[in-house]
Amino acid sequence: MTATRIPDTTQAELDTVLQRAADAAEAFGAQPPAARARQLVAAADALDAASSELVPLAMAESNLSEGRVELKRTTFQLRVFAEVLDDGSYLQATLDRADAAFPLGAKPDLRRILQPIGPVLVFAASNFPFAFSVAGGDTASALAAGCPVVLKGHPGHPRLSVRTGEIIVQSLAESGAPHGAFQVVLGFEVGTAALQDPRIKAAAFTGSVPAGRALFDIANSRPTPIPFFGELGSLNPVFVTPSAVHARGEEIAKGYVTSYSGNAGQLCTKPGLLFLPADHGLDELLAAESKAVAAHKLLNERLHEGYRGRRAAVTEVAGVRVLAEGSVDDGAVPTLLATDVDTLLANRQELLEEVFGPLSIVVTYSSGDEARRAAEAFEGNLTATLHAESDDTEFAATLVSRLRERAGRVLFNGWPTGVAVSPAMQHGGPYPAATDARFTSVGTASIDRFLRPVTYQNVPQDLLPEALRDENPWGIPQTIHEPK
Amino acid sequence: MTATRIPDTTQAELDTVLQRAADAAEAFGAQPPAARARQLVAAADALDAASSELVPLAMAESNLSEGRVELKRTTFQLRVFAEVLDDGSYLQATLDRADAAFPLGAKPDLRRILQPIGPVLVFAASNFPFAFSVAGGDTASALAAGCPVVLKGHPGHPRLSVRTGEIIVQSLAESGAPHGAFQVVLGFEVGTAALQDPRIKAAAFTGSVPAGRALFDIANSRPTPIPFFGELGSLNPVFVTPSAVHARGEEIAKGYVTSYSGNAGQLCTKPGLLFLPADHGLDELLAAESKAVAAHKLLNERLHEGYRGRRAAVTEVAGVRVLAEGSVDDGAVPTLLATDVDTLLANRQELLEEVFGPLSIVVTYSSGDEARRAAEAFEGNLTATLHAESDDTEFAATLVSRLRERAGRVLFNGWPTGVAVSPAMQHGGPYPAATDARFTSVGTASIDRFLRPVTYQNVPQDLLPEALRDENPWGIPQTIHEPK
Repeated sequence: MTATRIPDTTQAELDTVLQRAADAAEAFGAQPPAARARQLVAAADALDAASSELVPLAMAESNLSEGRVELKRTTFQLRVFAEVLDDGSYLQATLDRADAAFPLGAKPDLRRILQPIGPVLVFAASNFPFAFSVAGGDTASALAAGCPVVLKGHPGHPRLSVRTGEIIVQSLAESGAPHGAFQVVLGFEVGTAALQDPRIKAAAFTGSVPAGRALFDIANSRPTPIPFFGELGSLNPVFVTPSAVHARGEEIAKGYVTSYSGNAGQLCTKPGLLFLPADHGLDELLAAESKAVAAHKLLNERLHEGYRGRRAAVTEVAGVRVLAEGSVDDGAVPTLLATDVDTLLANRQELLEEVFGPLSIVVTYSSGDEARRAAEAFEGNLTATLHAESDDTEFAATLVSRLRERAGRVLFNGWPTGVAVSPAMQHGGPYPAATDARFTSVGTASIDRFLRPVTYQNVPQDLLPEALRDENPWGIPQTIHEPK
Repeated sequence: MTATRIPDTTQAELDTVLQRAADAAEAFGAQPPAARARQLVAAADALDAASSELVPLAMAESNLSEGRVELKRTTFQLRVFAEVLDDGSYLQATLDRADAAFPLGAKPDLRRILQPIGPVLVFAASNFPFAFSVAGGDTASALAAGCPVVLKGHPGHPRLSVRTGEIIVQSLAESGAPHGAFQVVLGFEVGTAALQDPRIKAAAFTGSVPAGRALFDIANSRPTPIPFFGELGSLNPVFVTPSAVHARGEEIAKGYVTSYSGNAGQLCTKPGLLFLPADHGLDELLAAESKAVAAHKLLNERLHEGYRGRRAAVTEVAGVRVLAEGSVDDGAVPTLLATDVDTLLANRQELLEEVFGPLSIVVTYSSGDEARRAAEAFEGNLTATLHAESDDTEFAATLVSRLRERAGRVLFNGWPTGVAVSPAMQHGGPYPAATDARFTSVGTASIDRFLRPVTYQNVPQDLLPEALRDENPWGIPQTIHEPK
């Protein structure tokens, strides 16, 4: 497409943006949760109303199909957080009554609540032009928490970023949010400058390990360090037991190819490695399924070049066979490789590193013990999957115990792509899958990233936050501890 | 006292300790919470039974009085965490049922639980030989979470560290904890070496800003960074309104001197600054109360030297007056200084930095607006306190809104020293009070530091952790979300 280049935000403009965010923080955070809920719903409604404009823009800038740009998921997320706010339990209001007879001496009245952490810097992702970008999950959860958001748009979809931002800004303003509650900036330099600015109190990022680690290091080396939530690279291994191959080999092969090649493999939950027993007999089917996938343009030229390089490096490892060569010309046709556990463990640096794009590796194991050793070789992952049958108890139990130490989500007889937005979702895992495995970037628990507790001791009712008052004017859940 | 010097742990010994901790992690974490609860109670019982041996040892090594070494609080904490385990809600078990009619497409069965993060390194504090040391709050909360603990003893009380460690190790072993669940190491070098070791998955520290920041930087610059919970320095400002001086000036003056001079000012919650209206008229009383406090030896010679230097530097600032000179010879008699807001704001580097020891500064303000400006000058604090009367609504509301942005606990008409161990306590605040304001090192919520969530997707009952099974064999609280 041809388009006038959208200029980067200048440093002077960034300073204005950051000051507006800082100035908005108190008023935005002090609103009743129900008010912010209405603002999130207004933003969702405005985005849905603009779908005929936004979706084609997203498709053009990302090379993704209409079904995969996921505007619906994005507005669903905004509405889910409105429900979280209406529920109010996210505040974790805890009232701990005074107790003159407390064993260690009289205890005062203590009331604890989560309050917004302050302005949040969100780095948009390349691969989700809506759901992890301007109005995506990080933005939705930070706004829900009551934090002004400074959104650094991804260079891969600048026009969509600007237009989505305009819609969010307008809908928030019209629904009563303070000026500065949400702002979009563009440009690499302003992103890192904003991360170092004392007015920014937390940051969220979705992207590669090198870029995420560099930003993590900046966040931690500030005079006043801030929480940095990076969702980085993940291999998402899938283990299949011999019984499962026997019972469902064909179904597993087809499901795997669909999962690793979907979206041209440009998903953080793409299964990068499939562990099969040595005698699985699925090579032909896996190859045929992979070859049947249509070419798909990658998100942008930079990613295309990165994929080309990683694909060549992995393919060249001695002991790695090609099942389906695929291509990297004019879009990408999936590449499927094969090797064994010994080769994998001898070439960790090349093979145990994410390939962002439609490439995956089938790894054969010769025994349950070898599969376990392979599982133990992994660093942190977002997901780990096991395909097993009901007679696989010991094999399955051993693998689950190894995989849960190395992943944020453990799946059974399914595929890791497709992440439900729900209260029990965990999208995050040990490093490098995430920079902080204690938090999630998908699901309602993601709001926890942008809140911090404050305790009020013997504070009179009229000076307490509404959520901690005895009369509970917001009608939120309060956990009350009475003296024993 | 004379004592044979206890040698530091060697690097070879440390390696054995770390391997034992790593080897113990799975079995220790997999125990039912009730089993770990019994182990914590056994440890508490064993410490209480040894009090006639331990308390004199603590007093001799710390120069603290019998009431201040706080063995009772320490064993109370261990028992509180046994209650947390018996309750089980700390696991945050969330069951999110499969939903074929979910708006974004069929949703699988998702179950989320918190699991132990792995071996935890705890750095003991100088000023609490029991409650923040070998068997202190960090140890209690990490063990409760199911994490093996490697405890780096403080050089200020080596004999107590070793003896307390022996008692904990024995009581845990006798009550069924795996070998390696708890171990003590000694020495500066092994502390930093352990922090860099991949077998350590999180660390907790209580101490000074420079030491804590150095360790925080090590934790974050590891190839695989880990959560580091530093509880560092805090000024704990106290603001008093004119009405409060009028109504309770004498009581406030006496309470303040007791609070800042108690334990020779060697508490992280010591009020370092008292803001009074310019015409408060309490100088004489404040001086007399301070002079009436008996000399108290500081914890150790290194702290004594540090205090001597900081006291001299602060006293020499132009515009700072001496109300009570105190002394730093053969123990310390409290030093009380006075200045005004202008001088404070013009000398932030000297005056807005913690003085660890029995020194505090009375700061006079000339208007409510000036008091507010002073409040806004603070970085992060553990606590901030307001003394006000019921007619001070506007002054009080303004100050509370400023103080809650800069503290983890906001107190009204009280003193920050004395931290209750309770579900609503927050002991932590914005940097530098803590390296991560989202967590607390005191109270039952401190267990959250050593847990991370894992989600199980469509996992069969017999492969799920007990806490997530439908039959709920541990009988813990499960939050269940049914399809709408």
